Amino acid sequence: MIVVMKPSATRIEIVNVTARIEQWGCRAHISEGNERTIIGIIGNGRPLDRAQIERMRGVERTVPVLRPFKLASRDFHPQDTVVPINGVSIGGKTLVVMAGPCAVEGREELMEAAQSVKSAGAQMLRGGAFKPRTSPYSFQGLGEEGLRILAAAREQTGLPVITEVMSPEQVPLVSTFADILQIGARNMQNYALLHAVGEAQRPVLLKRGMMSTIEELLMSAEYILSHGNNRVILCERGIRTFEKYTRNTLDINAVPLLKQLSHLPVVVDPSHATGKWELVAAVSRAAVAAGADGLLIEVHPHPSKALSDGAQSLKPEPFTQLIASLKAVAEAVGREL
Amino acid sequence: MIVVMKPSATRIEIVNVTARIEQWGCRAHISEGNERTIIGIIGNGRPLDRAQIERMRGVERTVPVLRPFKLASRDFHPQDTVVPINGVSIGGKTLVVMAGPCAVEGREELMEAAQSVKSAGAQMLRGGAFKPRTSPYSFQGLGEEGLRILAAAREQTGLPVITEVMSPEQVPLVSTFADILQIGARNMQNYALLHAVGEAQRPVLLKRGMMSTIEELLMSAEYILSHGNNRVILCERGIRTFEKYTRNTLDINAVPLLKQLSHLPVVVDPSHATGKWELVAAVSRAAVAAGADGLLIEVHPHPSKALSDGAQSLKPEPFTQLIASLKAVAEAVGREL
Amino acid sequence: MIVVMKPSATRIEIVNVTARIEQWGCRAHISEGNERTIIGIIGNGRPLDRAQIERMRGVERTVPVLRPFKLASRDFHPQDTVVPINGVSIGGKTLVVMAGPCAVEGREELMEAAQSVKSAGAQMLRGGAFKPRTSPYSFQGLGEEGLRILAAAREQTGLPVITEVMSPEQVPLVSTFADILQIGARNMQNYALLHAVGEAQRPVLLKRGMMSTIEELLMSAEYILSHGNNRVILCERGIRTFEKYTRNTLDINAVPLLKQLSHLPVVVDPSHATGKWELVAAVSRAAVAAGADGLLIEVHPHPSKALSDGAQSLKPEPFTQLIASLKAVAEAVGREL
Amino acid sequence: MIVVMKPSATRIEIVNVTARIEQWGCRAHISEGNERTIIGIIGNGRPLDRAQIERMRGVERTVPVLRPFKLASRDFHPQDTVVPINGVSIGGKTLVVMAGPCAVEGREELMEAAQSVKSAGAQMLRGGAFKPRTSPYSFQGLGEEGLRILAAAREQTGLPVITEVMSPEQVPLVSTFADILQIGARNMQNYALLHAVGEAQRPVLLKRGMMSTIEELLMSAEYILSHGNNRVILCERGIRTFEKYTRNTLDINAVPLLKQLSHLPVVVDPSHATGKWELVAAVSRAAVAAGADGLLIEVHPHPSKALSDGAQSLKPEPFTQLIASLKAVAEAVGREL
Repeated sequence: MIVVMKPSATRIEIVNVTARIEQWGCRAHISEGNERTIIGIIGNGRPLDRAQIERMRGVERTVPVLRPFKLASRDFHPQDTVVPINGVSIGGKTLVVMAGPCAVEGREELMEAAQSVKSAGAQMLRGGAFKPRTSPYSFQGLGEEGLRILAAAREQTGLPVITEVMSPEQVPLVSTFADILQIGARNMQNYALLHAVGEAQRPVLLKRGMMSTIEELLMSAEYILSHGNNRVILCERGIRTFEKYTRNTLDINAVPLLKQLSHLPVVVDPSHATGKWELVAAVSRAAVAAGADGLLIEVHPHPSKALSDGAQSLKPEPFTQLIASLKAVAEAVGREL
Repeated sequence: MIVVMKPSATRIEIVNVTARIEQWGCRAHISEGNERTIIGIIGNGRPLDRAQIERMRGVERTVPVLRPFKLASRDFHPQDTVVPINGVSIGGKTLVVMAGPCAVEGREELMEAAQSVKSAGAQMLRGGAFKPRTSPYSFQGLGEEGLRILAAAREQTGLPVITEVMSPEQVPLVSTFADILQIGARNMQNYALLHAVGEAQRPVLLKRGMMSTIEELLMSAEYILSHGNNRVILCERGIRTFEKYTRNTLDINAVPLLKQLSHLPVVVDPSHATGKWELVAAVSRAAVAAGADGLLIEVHPHPSKALSDGAQSLKPEPFTQLIASLKAVAEAVGREL
Repeated sequence: MIVVMKPSATRIEIVNVTARIEQWGCRAHISEGNERTIIGIIGNGRPLDRAQIERMRGVERTVPVLRPFKLASRDFHPQDTVVPINGVSIGGKTLVVMAGPCAVEGREELMEAAQSVKSAGAQMLRGGAFKPRTSPYSFQGLGEEGLRILAAAREQTGLPVITEVMSPEQVPLVSTFADILQIGARNMQNYALLHAVGEAQRPVLLKRGMMSTIEELLMSAEYILSHGNNRVILCERGIRTFEKYTRNTLDINAVPLLKQLSHLPVVVDPSHATGKWELVAAVSRAAVAAGADGLLIEVHPHPSKALSDGAQSLKPEPFTQLIASLKAVAEAVGREL
Repeated sequence: MIVVMKPSATRIEIVNVTARIEQWGCRAHISEGNERTIIGIIGNGRPLDRAQIERMRGVERTVPVLRPFKLASRDFHPQDTVVPINGVSIGGKTLVVMAGPCAVEGREELMEAAQSVKSAGAQMLRGGAFKPRTSPYSFQGLGEEGLRILAAAREQTGLPVITEVMSPEQVPLVSTFADILQIGARNMQNYALLHAVGEAQRPVLLKRGMMSTIEELLMSAEYILSHGNNRVILCERGIRTFEKYTRNTLDINAVPLLKQLSHLPVVVDPSHATGKWELVAAVSRAAVAAGADGLLIEVHPHPSKALSDGAQSLKPEPFTQLIASLKAVAEAVGREL
């Protein structure tokens, strides 16, 4: 950490800051410029409390030097993490497509969806049993019954299953049925939940919050990793911006950046990132070209009857065509599908 | 809800949309313009599923007409809600200042803080026992011991206590000690938690998420209200924008707008909204001038030793001065403190 | 346009609104719901003034139905616009790569850069003679001398040249030397400038403002088109968001969306959209996969000596490799390079 | 400036960076931590080119230490700048209210407006003769005729006049008629225009761009100051965020922050900052309470007939009431009106 003193800082204020630094067992390195004094802190391990230093007299601001995440960082774990899930691997050369309806709406509906995404070439089945909805008056999901239906669909199709978990006490139940536990965007900083899935025996797909920075996403991954679960998959699903023609703005920059900063696999959710099914195919191809390890796509046999997110769900036929075009793009960038 | 058809929509597509509307038990009202057909839906009560209609052929988009919140809306509850809390009332003519440290750090520290905010003129004591922190390596709060310390400080000073609750299973415990349950910004859309506090026997202060619209804030209030708890206080605490000189951007427009849209009391947290103690006084005065019903301010006797948020905490002396200046502003706008 | 009346609107207020609509020579179509009355305006051509209606008593808000752009819209011009420039065509099957340094820094430097981007496979040369810089103390460009150097480089390499024009009175001068006039992001709503290039005899590349919506970009294109210049190329160059690890956030959704909404060609500037050369290759491939018609890339033989934007400039060698990988992605999506 | 080297940086890479720093005539100050080396640059005056250093091998990033603005900074000009304008002073103890219609629509309309804002207590008259409009099909202002009408209104009422200038070649003309030249939000980074008004003999009111940081606003002020015009007034007029219920989000934090960072006067435009007349009064009071030196308010005798921005214009009567309440708030914070 670096401490930038005010131009008006006195000798005594500078001494007080260095004394505090040494109290912490760190070393202070003073550099006097023409206008300002800068104090470098040579640490003894993390973390230092920036706010404490910033409240000392004569201090203008502090600048962190080290990245605040460690277990998630590629600096200390150069090789890619590959997460194996019942015969499917996420993070290797082969891309993984997880597809299915936004919500599990019933047994028949899900079986039909599961069969159709399998036929099209998806390797995993997605579907929500517990649904976070903005309105208390919207369909909230089938709960445990939805989990049983998902498990039945896995039985029938052989596709592993990913589904969302919304609170710490649901973790044991959802872990019984799901192959991957999904943390939704609204819960990316629900620390009680991150703690709980950090102790679970299942891989976790962590969605970026719609207004969370890349650093915050990696810090939330750090929570899970620091509680002992190292099977974490990052998911870029669009961020909130001022643009109104789309539901969210896919941060495509985040894909190569996350791959540089971290060893964890990165998947993209083009359905939420656009909110419009007409854009899903183009954006899915872009995600693969940018280096994503997989995709999480909403597919519904009858979107105009979907109980949630119909506007962004692909029908099975365009989904099948999309898979074909993704194969070509994957090959163009040295991957396969 | 209004349905805007594409310019290319066919007669059959229009008929299909109106048939769907009638299936729902609503009436369709067709209006043919020169370029497009518009279909108004005259509802039978809420909610309609926009996405289902948007996925029908020939539909360009839908436009909601009604506000999606009802219990929180002033339309159906014109008079102000006033929330009484152990002798203090939030939402009436008298403004309420809740002050104290970001986190409860120890018994002595809190007692000192509580005495000093009381002397300065605060009517309630704030302090976090469970702390949501971006980093798993930061101080996470004292937990239940922190709650006991808060209760002891209430005993000694007579100030009612507000503290954060972070997960559904903490609600009974925190309700035993706290006078107001605080939902933090990161949990504004933690629906399991909203459900739990909706059934609690304590007033709830709901902070706006840093990424959440005013409509979403009111929808989260709707969750709590719809579970039976009508003692909800809204809190504007700054939103995330592109500006980097401040931690957040206080949305001062939200204060009069929330008062227009809703009957619930509105308080402002100038500490998080700025992240800089030097700005807290000016922004607190602005909040009162804009019509806020109260303030939630971080005050710490020794901010440069604070275990969290020291940079935005006021010391007792400037806090005392602030209270004096707030009295003058309150009077200027017909309120009192 | 649709007018949503307040729940409290009286009969007289509704009559006044319809009277105003009829004064405008439009027809009003009233639809009475259970809670609110909605009035559809059937227009006589654009535009209507929303704000005037919104200020009438009893009106809650208005909702526009038609897109505000017409000349730029695909609705009225279904086939793609292709802009031919000295033997290169933008908007057809073949992608166009425009490359070169951020600023023209001197004759030798530019000649070296021009030769190297030509060898790598670029079809056009970019370089700024007039530079918009945030600081008045930064290098402001070589001005007219820079234009002469660009023309000399075109002479030598055969590459057409694109360069920025910053004010209306520069338009004749820049038009003498440049093959495409570039409007920078900061000038996207500089209407005097849009007017001037709308009357120029050169194609215009219009960059999206860093905080402008897609609709505003198309409205600025509309200004140029409405002044008689129909050779407009749209450029997505990243928008400003809360994310701090990158300079801007490339709005990849905008690529397929602009292609749907408009007939104009769409190119992407991955250099500004990321601000980091390490991300340029991945993001360029994503842009092509998403359907972009071309790329505008900063390439500098010696980026660590560049007078501006060195951090986002590719060296010639990785640029050559990038072109090779772009060919593969282009083919995967049915294009060529 | 501070250079943060990568953990993997070699001895040679560090030597190369220090050599470059010394080439620039600066001194390098090396600080070796456990994980990284940090190099402080002790400058010889501004500016240094961060991007050049960032492109050197082994460099992770650079951190600026000094603020990039100098003439606008309070560090070098501690006392407040007060701008005198025909008997009115902006930046002193007395607040200044500038009011009038968005656009000059005709002689009679403006005279009526001017008389009514004068009676209500405004000290200056605002009105646009040249109007920047998003759509080429909207009313673009009366141009020179509008300027003549403004001058006539000044003659009649004695109120000095502020009006917008949109391009460099309009500066001489507008300077003939106006007392203050206004730079609109969309032109805050129109550097040719900033240069032109920097050489004009009139005070300049510089509006913050809706997409611009506080630092960028001060850098644009620096352009004007560095061209010799030191009568610059800053204007906060709301920024663009994700919130949709209001037209913009007033950044109230910016008011005290700008007063701390700079010696220039700061005024607030509550009309654009909200876009809704119902919010203008509350937000105006907040601006004064936060320390603004003045307000720029849209007032129109007949807003529902206004040719632009009717929805955010106050009628004369509520404006008169607002002035009364502003007097009380001004006194509460030690100012007068």
